[in-house]
Amino acid sequence: MADKVLIYSRFPKTMMARFAERFDLLDTGGKSAHEVFSAAELGGIRALLTAGGTPLGGEVMDLFPELGAIVCYGTGYDGIDLKAAAERNIAVGHSPGANAASVADIAMTLMLATTRRILVADQYVRSGDWAASKPSPMMRPQAGLPGRRIGVYGMGEIGRKIAARCAAFESEVGYFSRTKHDLPYQYFPTLEALAEWCSVLMIAVRAGAETQHAVNAEILGRLGADGHVVNISRGSVIDEQALVAALTDKTVAGAGLDVYETEPHAPGALTALPNVVLAPHIGGHTLDSHVAMQSCVLANLTAFFEGRPLPHAVKTA
Amino acid sequence: MADKVLIYSRFPKTMMARFAERFDLLDTGGKSAHEVFSAAELGGIRALLTAGGTPLGGEVMDLFPELGAIVCYGTGYDGIDLKAAAERNIAVGHSPGANAASVADIAMTLMLATTRRILVADQYVRSGDWAASKPSPMMRPQAGLPGRRIGVYGMGEIGRKIAARCAAFESEVGYFSRTKHDLPYQYFPTLEALAEWCSVLMIAVRAGAETQHAVNAEILGRLGADGHVVNISRGSVIDEQALVAALTDKTVAGAGLDVYETEPHAPGALTALPNVVLAPHIGGHTLDSHVAMQSCVLANLTAFFEGRPLPHAVKTA
Repeated sequence: MADKVLIYSRFPKTMMARFAERFDLLDTGGKSAHEVFSAAELGGIRALLTAGGTPLGGEVMDLFPELGAIVCYGTGYDGIDLKAAAERNIAVGHSPGANAASVADIAMTLMLATTRRILVADQYVRSGDWAASKPSPMMRPQAGLPGRRIGVYGMGEIGRKIAARCAAFESEVGYFSRTKHDLPYQYFPTLEALAEWCSVLMIAVRAGAETQHAVNAEILGRLGADGHVVNISRGSVIDEQALVAALTDKTVAGAGLDVYETEPHAPGALTALPNVVLAPHIGGHTLDSHVAMQSCVLANLTAFFEGRPLPHAVKTA
Repeated sequence: MADKVLIYSRFPKTMMARFAERFDLLDTGGKSAHEVFSAAELGGIRALLTAGGTPLGGEVMDLFPELGAIVCYGTGYDGIDLKAAAERNIAVGHSPGANAASVADIAMTLMLATTRRILVADQYVRSGDWAASKPSPMMRPQAGLPGRRIGVYGMGEIGRKIAARCAAFESEVGYFSRTKHDLPYQYFPTLEALAEWCSVLMIAVRAGAETQHAVNAEILGRLGADGHVVNISRGSVIDEQALVAALTDKTVAGAGLDVYETEPHAPGALTALPNVVLAPHIGGHTLDSHVAMQSCVLANLTAFFEGRPLPHAVKTA
């Protein structure tokens, strides 16, 4: 009999197809497991598959007395209470780096889309206003990328890939992270100093308690009126209310967001703004990235059921 | 008395400000010069400032008997009948390379926007459909950039900058141009071979009679169903009707366009499509690019009125 794996978050069926070949999947569709499945069905559940952003604390872990592994689909694991898992001797795995290029690419997409105002541009052509010679909303030229100072917040795999891409655009690249790396970009010892220096802030830091609302009104103010913010990390890193205020009163020029404080809810005050580009958390959503993430999930689950340590375990400091 | 310069195309006043400091500008606003100005005012016009894409043939040149210089604002000069100008001993100048980075950046913006479907993504969030858990139009993941084969058509300054940017995205880069260059990208001896190899075609070739409709139904067919076309050169290079047909019947997946066959008219069949990203010819439209282009214009006009050869003359083969 195949080993049972409970699908804890809501995932499209197509993304689960490779796992279904190997395991007996109990798919909750994101609902409470005990509403969807009987106690008998849930008996003996030893592994959960989840999205790293979905909250998963000790009280949930306790619903499955034999739980031994929580495997995250993707890089993030911010929803998992790691301390609670450790106390219960539950291994936590993820897919480190598997989606890094894909996420870095969506960061670049959002950065270019907001700095070059592609939504406004498309609407001007699509509406017929350009053909009718109506006044162009693109009239005032914006700063281009060559010579722009782009600040990368967080220098993990995604941050490095963002930095390398930005450098190819002839931009100056600087970064802030907890430690200085051996990289050809200017290091800033604080987020404040980075924001003061740059006019485009790319948020690529791992989410957690210490980065909660790290990008607040004060940091946004330092970017300047031609400043842009791009977030592909987690919504919690930005104070979303402060961002809406800064975008509304033009403290900053624009933003490109793939993540939000309470997904899938992007606040109405944000979706009503013309100077934002919004994506529904699709950073890692490419064919190659899914294949790579699924391979990590399969490797983690297979190892777990064979009694080996997870090959892609979350490393705790 | 300042030298007179006739502004032949329609330009925003702000873009002419630096010239107005040095020259006596006669601004037609894109209308016929003899409708806007009296024969007396137009008497002795020796220099025209124009947009390279605006048609300007021998019959127009003959309206200004003392014309000695046609200066294009920007890189392009495809609207100018160079043979007619040469026969009349009229020098033609442009701004080579001044906007190359800015244009390459809009090519990358359009490429990322079409391959990652950013307009569809933004609309899904903005409409509230994501929050309401309506079926996602982003469900089917697309190929990402790492490992994608990107074909660059034309290897001038803009083509090189596009290629360098694409390489930073971990894509494979190939190109076709009349001559093979000493560059680290795979060379294809024909456009057909390039289109067969790649799935993203970036058009960066100089427009002219020999490139008219070079990208036709056959070339589009070779890109494949996950293929994308990006054009930042001139609309004439693509057979626009064939492109609309290919986008409609999904012969190709998407397109990103900054230029059109008859600007500012983007055909309704194109603007109605969901799988295109459209920009109103803003490739060179950044602050730094305008400053650089204006410097070329000023250098050309100053040299001409001082009796020197144009420093940025159009080089004819």
